Amino acid sequence: MRILLVGAGGVGSAFAAIAARRDFFETIVVADYSLERAEKAAATDSRYVAARIDASSEDAVAALCREHGITHVMNAVDPVFNMPIFNGAFAAGADYLDMAMSLSKPHPEAPYEKTGVKLGDEQFAVAGDWESSGRLALVGIGVEPGLSDVFARYAADHLFSEIDELGTRDGANLVVTDDEGNEIFAPSFSMWTTIEECLNPPVIWQDGDWHTTPPFSEPEVFDFPEGIGPVECVNVEHEEVLLMPRWVDCKRATFKYGLGDEFINILKVLHTLGLDSTEKVRVKGVEVSPRDVVAAVLPDPATVGPRMKGKTCAGLWVTGKGKDGAARSTYLYHVVDNEWTMQEYGHQCVVWQTAINPVVALELLSRGTWQGAGVLGPEAFDAVPFLDLLTEYGSPWGIKEL
Amino acid sequence: MRILLVGAGGVGSAFAAIAARRDFFETIVVADYSLERAEKAAATDSRYVAARIDASSEDAVAALCREHGITHVMNAVDPVFNMPIFNGAFAAGADYLDMAMSLSKPHPEAPYEKTGVKLGDEQFAVAGDWESSGRLALVGIGVEPGLSDVFARYAADHLFSEIDELGTRDGANLVVTDDEGNEIFAPSFSMWTTIEECLNPPVIWQDGDWHTTPPFSEPEVFDFPEGIGPVECVNVEHEEVLLMPRWVDCKRATFKYGLGDEFINILKVLHTLGLDSTEKVRVKGVEVSPRDVVAAVLPDPATVGPRMKGKTCAGLWVTGKGKDGAARSTYLYHVVDNEWTMQEYGHQCVVWQTAINPVVALELLSRGTWQGAGVLGPEAFDAVPFLDLLTEYGSPWGIKEL
Repeated sequence: MRILLVGAGGVGSAFAAIAARRDFFETIVVADYSLERAEKAAATDSRYVAARIDASSEDAVAALCREHGITHVMNAVDPVFNMPIFNGAFAAGADYLDMAMSLSKPHPEAPYEKTGVKLGDEQFAVAGDWESSGRLALVGIGVEPGLSDVFARYAADHLFSEIDELGTRDGANLVVTDDEGNEIFAPSFSMWTTIEECLNPPVIWQDGDWHTTPPFSEPEVFDFPEGIGPVECVNVEHEEVLLMPRWVDCKRATFKYGLGDEFINILKVLHTLGLDSTEKVRVKGVEVSPRDVVAAVLPDPATVGPRMKGKTCAGLWVTGKGKDGAARSTYLYHVVDNEWTMQEYGHQCVVWQTAINPVVALELLSRGTWQGAGVLGPEAFDAVPFLDLLTEYGSPWGIKEL
Repeated sequence: MRILLVGAGGVGSAFAAIAARRDFFETIVVADYSLERAEKAAATDSRYVAARIDASSEDAVAALCREHGITHVMNAVDPVFNMPIFNGAFAAGADYLDMAMSLSKPHPEAPYEKTGVKLGDEQFAVAGDWESSGRLALVGIGVEPGLSDVFARYAADHLFSEIDELGTRDGANLVVTDDEGNEIFAPSFSMWTTIEECLNPPVIWQDGDWHTTPPFSEPEVFDFPEGIGPVECVNVEHEEVLLMPRWVDCKRATFKYGLGDEFINILKVLHTLGLDSTEKVRVKGVEVSPRDVVAAVLPDPATVGPRMKGKTCAGLWVTGKGKDGAARSTYLYHVVDNEWTMQEYGHQCVVWQTAINPVVALELLSRGTWQGAGVLGPEAFDAVPFLDLLTEYGSPWGIKEL
C-alpha cells in the first residue's frame, strides 16, 4: 500500500503521527500546498516523503499519484477541494478516502424545508464509474462521519432488530486558557468550517426521505459519558444523515452537535451581523471576506493543544427494538482525553480523534479484511474488525444504555 | 456670529438643516474631509459655504477660521479629532463647541476600578488659558452630553434641595427593516463609536470622586416614557459623569445606556472574539482592523433613516430631596419620533436629536443670554432659556415623577 496524504494541517499531521506506529503500508507521500508544512509532518517517519501539491487541480493530484505509484489517496484538506482530489485519484487508478463529503447547496426556494444539492451528491453521482472500474472511494471515514457510521452498522448487526433513530451526538468539555490561565474562546476545530456546517440548513432523514430545518433546530441537552456531562446540542448539517440510511434501515437519522449555549450564541451573532459571509467587503481600501477575518482573529486550532484541557466525545444514540424485541436505547461512543493525545502523540484530541479512523480503515483495506468497489460509506463494511482494531490501537470505544 | 462647522456627516448635516431655519448667524462654513459631502450639506442655505478640511491638523483649522473670520467653531466629527480642532479654534481666537469630549485612556493597572485619563481631561487641563483669554469652549453640548447636563442644572436650581443621584438614562424603541420589511440589525449611531463607548470602562461619580467598573455593569430595566417602555440599561463611559459633578452638587452621577439585551449580547460576543479590536490583523494577504470590518458589514447609520421606525429618548433621572425637603424622584426627558424628523428635516432622529442642542446653544450665545469664558459644560449656564428655546424650536421636553 502506497498512500498519498493530501493535506498536512491539523488532521493530516495527526494522521501521519498515528500511521507512523503501524507497518501495513510501504510509503506515505505527505503533500501540502505549503512544502514546509508537508516536510514538517513527513519528518515523523523514514517511510514518508514530502511533496508540494495544489489540491484544487485534478491533474496535479493524478500526476503525483502516478509519480509515486500511489494505491490509496487520503484526502485531509478542506472539503472544498474534494472533487478535484476524488477525480484525480480515479484518473490515476488509485483508491480514495476522505473524512467529509462534497459540499451541499441549499434549496433555492425553500432552504429550510427541502434539500438542494446534498452533501456527497457529486460523489455518489459517479459511483457507477468507480464500481465498474473496481475502484473504491471510502467516503466519510473520519470520526464523524466515520466512526459514528461504523457504530450504526454495529448496532444494526448486533444490537437492534428494528431501528427508530440513528442519532449522532457530539459533545466535549474542552477549555482553552491563555498564558495567565484565563479561559478564552478558542474553537478546537476550523472556525471557517464550523460556521459553514452550523449555519447551513441542517438535514434530517425521516420516513424514507431527507428534509432540512432552520439552523440550530430541535435543541436538546445530551448527557455525555466519562465526566463530560450535559451539553446543549442542536441539529447541524452532517454527512452521517446522508450516509447511514443508504446502508442501514432506520426511520430517522439526525446529527446533533454539542455546541453549547455560548458557541451557539456566538454563531447567531456572527450571522446577525453578516460576519459569517464569505463575500468580500471593501474596508478602508482593501477587500476581505468577513468570515476570513473572524477566523484570523481567533487562535489557530492547530496550536491550542498545549493550552487545552478536557475530553471530546463522538457517538451514536440508537433507539428502537433490541434483538429480543424489547425497546432499547443505546449510546455507542468514543471519548478521547486531550491530555493523553498531547502526551502520547503531540496532537490535540479533536484532530487526533478524526485522524485515527482512516488509519484503522486503511490497515483493514491493506489486510483485505475490508474490501469493496464503488462510492461507499463506512457502514457498508463489517463493523467488528474496525472496532477491534481501534481498541488494539489503544483507543477503546464504549457502550451505555440510556 | 460666523460659524465653522467641522464635519458634514450625520450630525453635521442635521445641524446644517436645523440652523438653516434660524437667523441668529451671518454665515456657516461647512467643512469636511470630503468636499463633496460638505457641498451637499452646504446646499441647504444661501448663507452656507463649503470647504475641505483636514480635522487632524490644528493649523488647518486655525487657517480656515482666519480665512472666514470665524467667531465660533462647531465640532461635529469623531472625538478622536477633538484636540486639533479645540486647539485650532483657540489659536485663531474663536470660541469652540463640541458634542463629545477628548478621549479617555484606561488606568494601566486597574482599568475596571480606577480612572486613567478621563474624558475631557486634556481639554480641562488648559481651561485656565481659555479663561484668561476670555474665550469660551462649551464642551459636550449635544443631546447626551448636552441636554442631559442642562436638565441637571434645571433640577438643581428649580426642583431639588439636595441631590442623591444624577442618572442619565438613554433608551429607544427604534427598529430598522430591510426592503422586504424584515427587521434587521442596524445601529442608528456609528458602530465604531458605540463599541468604543460601551467597551471602555464605565465611569461613575460617587461621594466626591470618580471610579470605574467593568463594562455593562449594574444592569437595570428603565421604563422610558411616551410609549418606548422598558429597556435593559447598563453603565457606559459618558461625559455627563465627568461634567455634572463639576457644577452641580450630587452624591452620585451615572450614565446608563439602554442598549437592550440583543445589543449587549452582540457587543459581548464581538469582545470575546476580539472583533472589537482596532489593531490590524493579517487576512489572506491584506491588513485590516477587525472593528473596521464590523462597521463595514453593517448598514451606514446615516442611510437607515427612511427604513427606521420608532422613538428615541434622552433624559436625566434625578433622585434626592425636593424643594419642600421630601424625597423626590424625577425623570426629565426629551423624546423624538423618527417619522417626524424624517418628514420635517429629512434626518433620522438620533443624529437630529444630537444636532438641535448646539444650534439652540449658539443662538443663546449670539443673544448674549449665555456667556462665559473658560472650558465650561452646559450645566455652567442657566437652564431655563435653553429649555424654553428648545420648545420654541418645536421640540418640547417632558418631566415625569417616578
